[in-house]
Amino acid sequence: MRQIPIILFGLGGVGSALLRQIVEQRVHHAEQYGIELQLSALCDSSGAVTVTAVSANAALGDQILQEILQLKSAGGCLLDHRLGKPQGDLAAIVDRVGCPGAIVVDCTASRETVPALLLAMERSYQVALVNKIPLTVEMETYDRLTGVGAAVAGSAENSRSMGQPLTRNLTQSRWETTVGAGLPVIATLNRLVASGDPITRIAGALSGTLGYVMTGLEGGASLSEIVCEAHRLGYTEPDPRDDLGGIDVARKALILARGLGWQLSMEDMQVEGLYPSSMGELSVTEFLEALPELDAEFAQRVADAAAAGKVLRYAATIEGGKCRVGPTVVERESPLGRLSGTDNLVEFHSRWYNPNPLVIQGSGAGTDVTAAGLLSDIVELAFAR
Amino acid sequence: MRQIPIILFGLGGVGSALLRQIVEQRVHHAEQYGIELQLSALCDSSGAVTVTAVSANAALGDQILQEILQLKSAGGCLLDHRLGKPQGDLAAIVDRVGCPGAIVVDCTASRETVPALLLAMERSYQVALVNKIPLTVEMETYDRLTGVGAAVAGSAENSRSMGQPLTRNLTQSRWETTVGAGLPVIATLNRLVASGDPITRIAGALSGTLGYVMTGLEGGASLSEIVCEAHRLGYTEPDPRDDLGGIDVARKALILARGLGWQLSMEDMQVEGLYPSSMGELSVTEFLEALPELDAEFAQRVADAAAAGKVLRYAATIEGGKCRVGPTVVERESPLGRLSGTDNLVEFHSRWYNPNPLVIQGSGAGTDVTAAGLLSDIVELAFAR
Repeated sequence: MRQIPIILFGLGGVGSALLRQIVEQRVHHAEQYGIELQLSALCDSSGAVTVTAVSANAALGDQILQEILQLKSAGGCLLDHRLGKPQGDLAAIVDRVGCPGAIVVDCTASRETVPALLLAMERSYQVALVNKIPLTVEMETYDRLTGVGAAVAGSAENSRSMGQPLTRNLTQSRWETTVGAGLPVIATLNRLVASGDPITRIAGALSGTLGYVMTGLEGGASLSEIVCEAHRLGYTEPDPRDDLGGIDVARKALILARGLGWQLSMEDMQVEGLYPSSMGELSVTEFLEALPELDAEFAQRVADAAAAGKVLRYAATIEGGKCRVGPTVVERESPLGRLSGTDNLVEFHSRWYNPNPLVIQGSGAGTDVTAAGLLSDIVELAFAR
Repeated sequence: MRQIPIILFGLGGVGSALLRQIVEQRVHHAEQYGIELQLSALCDSSGAVTVTAVSANAALGDQILQEILQLKSAGGCLLDHRLGKPQGDLAAIVDRVGCPGAIVVDCTASRETVPALLLAMERSYQVALVNKIPLTVEMETYDRLTGVGAAVAGSAENSRSMGQPLTRNLTQSRWETTVGAGLPVIATLNRLVASGDPITRIAGALSGTLGYVMTGLEGGASLSEIVCEAHRLGYTEPDPRDDLGGIDVARKALILARGLGWQLSMEDMQVEGLYPSSMGELSVTEFLEALPELDAEFAQRVADAAAAGKVLRYAATIEGGKCRVGPTVVERESPLGRLSGTDNLVEFHSRWYNPNPLVIQGSGAGTDVTAAGLLSDIVELAFAR
């Protein structure tokens, strides 16, 4: 049995679901793959629980993991656990409990994990990310975390600026769940890139919440009705502008564009949200009350698309070196045009996938489906060295 | 630069396209991945061209490869080439020119490659298959080629019969293009299995030709009209019964079912073709002339489905330990129900992809798209050891 030490950052919905699935799947992973995923460290924003000794089979026992899961589901934090210590520095934890063969899993939504992730890469540990932030900050961080490196000595950034080729190393990290949760979007992108099939366009619906809104609009409801209902039902973030603004979709689009080798940053994303920036200063209540002001405009846009025999979708379009995110008129008979509801969908148009694109579709959110995707990444990494 | 020796079996459409793409993508693979794919041996049904010396960088030069491509596209065979030798035994070629790090690529549609492929696995070389036959003969051959092995000593077959667990090794082979050509169907299946997400049903349209026929039926044409036209246009095999019989779809379904860990064989497949077995003895011309006898029945089946608010598709259904292949009534609003034309489509229903399945859609045939999928497999294998 091969032991795989895991260092887990983040115990929110996805992190806790991952921990639960790791425990549930122990027999499956042992019998089918001959591996055992062993937790060396757990960190949340309050604190950390780590193994005391660092050795090949030092691990937090399942009883401790169950206690922590109960603690988290009751709204507690790691510092409340009998073994909990103040978190301190995440990189110091990687330094202390990391060992060859370890996988660092980032389930946070924070920038603060970056130094720890980079240290893990430097030490030749492996990294699995659901956190989009580290891949959407500076290009150099993206390069280092995704195994894009200089073919010759020096940083990828320097090599890029000197026009030198960069090589991709496919063994050290996975970030499948950053786009479309468990859907194989990044795997498909990476396979197309590996084959050399030139990708001419990626078009995707990458937000279940915005899919719900656009389907509601198409069904004749007003923007304010749909958003207020979705907010009431908990389908949106507590502040619905976090969904409606499109920034989260833009991060996903940037990860796809960078996967094509394009050197873009968040500032290069052309993002159109579903509300004007003037409404950004309101309280949530004021925002929801002001929403009916936008109803007529959106009803008109849906009607205009329909009059042209087309439909309106909230889409990311990655084409010709540019990324556009916003309400987009698409052909009714295209995969995006036929989509309704909360599913994510990504069309890859390439030399060989032409005129019909390669399409991936399915639920693109949810803690369990995301955790399952991370678990696939972890198993793949265990076999990638 | 890392050299990857390639031994290629089969120089039909896909094999030749692969060879052409390997040559075209040399710079891409060198710059992006730091690898160079080097041909050590090429085999077709007539003969073989192999390197004379076996060493880390012995390879057939691009000029020889271009000559061979021209020869093949002019309808010639390897034995006609100045370096061509009678093929003899494929396993002997693997034995002679194989070396650590080599990848054996099977682009034939023959059973005769099996001993050579098994020898490659035994020697810890790697294997990439588009050939479905080796994965649809005895279970033991499937197990050995896909890296399913006994956790304890002994063959997988013995361990299975003794109820002992088998482990999967993800590093030694890829067979993505056996189902859906370049579509990431096997990769998705393997990811779901790795996560432990229990798959409850796979339903797929796995034949472009049969998709074309079913779309024609739905559009009101008769079976005989569509098949005769498709045959005239070269959309079907020379004997259209090779498509209409469903055996090729059944092989794909078996590969999916075995990927779930099910121990099934071709005899377990429930296959309903689009013609009765009594028409199997006719000549092609007689068959095409007799086809109108079936028109009324199929028009009725399409009408019955429509009357129930549903649609008829030629589908493989893998569920509850069984595989059924044939005309299938599906919900109009399901992914399969919304499909039209020649695209392949696979729905994965699982615990987490429920009620909406994970869906993969796109062209599932064509020499270039298949060769590109093989090239992705080869790059992945180069990074999987």
